[in-house]
Amino acid sequence: MKFTAKQISELLNGTVEGDENVILNQLTKIEEGVSNSLSFLANPKYNEYLYDSKSSVVIVNNTFIPEKPFTTTLIRVKDAYASFARLMRIVEDLQNEKVGIEVPSYIDHSSKIGADIYIGAFAYIGKNVQLGDKVKIYPNCYIGDNVHIGANCTIYAGVKIYENCDIEKNSTIHAGAVIGADGFGFAPNTSNTYDKIPQIGNVIIKEGVEIGANTCIDRATMGSTIIHKGVKLDNLIQIAHNVEIGENTVIASQTAIAGSSRVGKNCMIGGQVAIAGHLTVANNVKVAGKTGIAADVKIEGKILQGPLAFDIKDFQRSYIYFRKLPKIVARIETLEKQLSK
Amino acid sequence: MKFTAKQISELLNGTVEGDENVILNQLTKIEEGVSNSLSFLANPKYNEYLYDSKSSVVIVNNTFIPEKPFTTTLIRVKDAYASFARLMRIVEDLQNEKVGIEVPSYIDHSSKIGADIYIGAFAYIGKNVQLGDKVKIYPNCYIGDNVHIGANCTIYAGVKIYENCDIEKNSTIHAGAVIGADGFGFAPNTSNTYDKIPQIGNVIIKEGVEIGANTCIDRATMGSTIIHKGVKLDNLIQIAHNVEIGENTVIASQTAIAGSSRVGKNCMIGGQVAIAGHLTVANNVKVAGKTGIAADVKIEGKILQGPLAFDIKDFQRSYIYFRKLPKIVARIETLEKQLSK
Amino acid sequence: MKFTAKQISELLNGTVEGDENVILNQLTKIEEGVSNSLSFLANPKYNEYLYDSKSSVVIVNNTFIPEKPFTTTLIRVKDAYASFARLMRIVEDLQNEKVGIEVPSYIDHSSKIGADIYIGAFAYIGKNVQLGDKVKIYPNCYIGDNVHIGANCTIYAGVKIYENCDIEKNSTIHAGAVIGADGFGFAPNTSNTYDKIPQIGNVIIKEGVEIGANTCIDRATMGSTIIHKGVKLDNLIQIAHNVEIGENTVIASQTAIAGSSRVGKNCMIGGQVAIAGHLTVANNVKVAGKTGIAADVKIEGKILQGPLAFDIKDFQRSYIYFRKLPKIVARIETLEKQLSK
Repeated sequence: MKFTAKQISELLNGTVEGDENVILNQLTKIEEGVSNSLSFLANPKYNEYLYDSKSSVVIVNNTFIPEKPFTTTLIRVKDAYASFARLMRIVEDLQNEKVGIEVPSYIDHSSKIGADIYIGAFAYIGKNVQLGDKVKIYPNCYIGDNVHIGANCTIYAGVKIYENCDIEKNSTIHAGAVIGADGFGFAPNTSNTYDKIPQIGNVIIKEGVEIGANTCIDRATMGSTIIHKGVKLDNLIQIAHNVEIGENTVIASQTAIAGSSRVGKNCMIGGQVAIAGHLTVANNVKVAGKTGIAADVKIEGKILQGPLAFDIKDFQRSYIYFRKLPKIVARIETLEKQLSK
Repeated sequence: MKFTAKQISELLNGTVEGDENVILNQLTKIEEGVSNSLSFLANPKYNEYLYDSKSSVVIVNNTFIPEKPFTTTLIRVKDAYASFARLMRIVEDLQNEKVGIEVPSYIDHSSKIGADIYIGAFAYIGKNVQLGDKVKIYPNCYIGDNVHIGANCTIYAGVKIYENCDIEKNSTIHAGAVIGADGFGFAPNTSNTYDKIPQIGNVIIKEGVEIGANTCIDRATMGSTIIHKGVKLDNLIQIAHNVEIGENTVIASQTAIAGSSRVGKNCMIGGQVAIAGHLTVANNVKVAGKTGIAADVKIEGKILQGPLAFDIKDFQRSYIYFRKLPKIVARIETLEKQLSK
Repeated sequence: MKFTAKQISELLNGTVEGDENVILNQLTKIEEGVSNSLSFLANPKYNEYLYDSKSSVVIVNNTFIPEKPFTTTLIRVKDAYASFARLMRIVEDLQNEKVGIEVPSYIDHSSKIGADIYIGAFAYIGKNVQLGDKVKIYPNCYIGDNVHIGANCTIYAGVKIYENCDIEKNSTIHAGAVIGADGFGFAPNTSNTYDKIPQIGNVIIKEGVEIGANTCIDRATMGSTIIHKGVKLDNLIQIAHNVEIGENTVIASQTAIAGSSRVGKNCMIGGQVAIAGHLTVANNVKVAGKTGIAADVKIEGKILQGPLAFDIKDFQRSYIYFRKLPKIVARIETLEKQLSK
């Protein structure tokens, strides 16, 4: 991007105080400002940063009254935070404005492709695939046979989606994620080895879902592994076969959910959490990072922690005493000595 | 798939009771049945599901005697479970019936390719690669120089196999897995930085192994990292350089095994386990999820749990008292008060 | 490789004792020697291995005096360890001697490419990309728009680098790593769902960094996620948005560092560690595997362990008592009984 303060101000219906011709080529935090960067100041707590900011321009609220001299140009707007967020979205959209079909790509003739699509070079589109309008498939992606991808989805580079999976509209899948690999199902046999249980279900990702880089979501043995509307998954997460994750649940990096477990709506699950198989987790549950869940969580809104999870406050209380165990044992020894006298 | 009840019945040497012309296009669990789905009922515990099943057809044992009315068509066979499993395998095979060499792919002229092979578009086959009969290499795979892949292996999309690695027959590697990246070996030097230790070994994957999506198996510093016959690895697992994993051991997602450790045969290792470097784990050992192993496990059949592993029952007993630590300390305080009187 | 003992000896300025025409085709440890392999013996502790080594040739120090008969050929050199390490580097270089641009690859005409470069088939080079001299881009890589990659970098197969990221010279990125995916930033809104916070920063990887297979480093929300000079990251690591990792810090597999945290220089961080967001970790800190860090680590050189980290010795002392908790509680019961009498 490259804009003048005047252009930005007009876009935001603002007014410039200072040099309206200064060139802006990046957005920065006010405390990390450099020449030609544009920042914002909304929270009065950060006012001090303005007076020695190196940003060329700072967006402030119309109501802002400076208390010291400063050198930066101001753009005054009704809502500085909202205006800046709008600029961030514009920059993000510019980063991803790809359109067209690059060559070489592989598109099976039986696939149906919507309008205004982007298909990068070396992307593979299998048989009977359906891609909605404005879908973006970045380079080196693999879209297996019979996969449906709804409108406005963005599939970043090198994503692999196995056959028969459904991705609904407005979803985003980051680079290297694998959707629909076989569930981990093996049955021990009489020769002390394992027979593979065929994995013939699929994965359904509902609308508005975001899936992080190198995250894996396995297909169901039969039926579907389902990621409901609005779920946000971070990087390197493992979702096993036949799992179901409720609407608007957010899960941080490197968490694993084992086969057939169901996580409720609006849960917040930290990083490196493990949820064992065949469990149910209620709505609005919060789970601290590194927690292990080995039993159903039946109470909505429960907050959990620990390698075998229990109430977070109780866990932290127990952990304080865990740290003091050498002293606690010393107290017992003292008691034992006193009593033995 | 699209079959009539009659066609399925003939395939299974069964007999139809009901509408032999009903069309079947998917397999489902009996409790998740829908129109045009085919289910099975083998365990009498689930008999109740039959009477209001929405499956169009249910496969039952010849010996099954219904106790209530129902509307679904039956196919009677000798062994309902085995028959259904056979159908699942047929459906799975249909999903993966790829054959031929798609264009464009990159196949070095020095490589040797067996019969009835599948090589997907944008797959890369380096110098002196050998691919056995019926090998399937899905799109966007990278097969480095001198890699050998035995007959009937399936390498799903976007797998990366570095040079000189061996994959024996009947093995499956899921999308995004990386086989043969450099081991993590660095030697501190006098300038307080690190010198890389060259990693010139390889990875050997024996026959009948299954490797999950985005799992990483590093090449040996010298010699070989070896995954023995029949091992099953889930997604996102880390196997470091010079590790050896014994036959038929099964490891769940996100577990890490550090450099030069040897895991025995027929072990069952849970998810998010860590095994430190240069250790030996005996045969038939079971390890609960999230466990950390920092010492040799010498006793065969041992079952372990805990961040620094010990016997699972002892761990769980200790953990019960960990949860009660605030109460335990209160008891000590009571004792102290009583004694100070 | 294929060399005679004589050729190796001349390369190392050594002298052959035995069959100077024996063919050598691999390097092995002395205890794992086979026919036609070359090993070394530097540490007198391992002298015993020589006398029944199956290696065809063993490199020894000039000063070595055998105490028993043996059959293998020797090459005597000034420093056996250094000579062998040099051979390992030569073998490694031979593995990676790729050069040239394979077809088909996708190179946008606006990109600038240095001398002696390797670009593998199906690699994608976006707009305004700059690749320094001797850069190697393996097959199936995705290099987004405006990415700069310094001289002598090696980017292994299937790496995905999003737009605007910088990789400085002499760095190595292993297969499947994802650099620059969106940070995991979502703001809850009034309709109980989440709005995505645009992620418009980048990732800067300084010189001499090594990044493991399938590791993910997210772009900054604004500004840069920075991996400083000489950092070594193992496989399957998660580095979140706006994190900064100090020079020469080494991090083992499957560790996660949450948003905006800063890790100091020369730290050693084990595998499966989690560092929560917005924290600072001092220089020279060591963290045991599986540790969770939920507070700033202010003391340089501190060594930490535990799910909520504290001093490693204190943790291990507490853990010993954790294992003994059933016995400790029994002692309390004994005291209670004695007092109640």
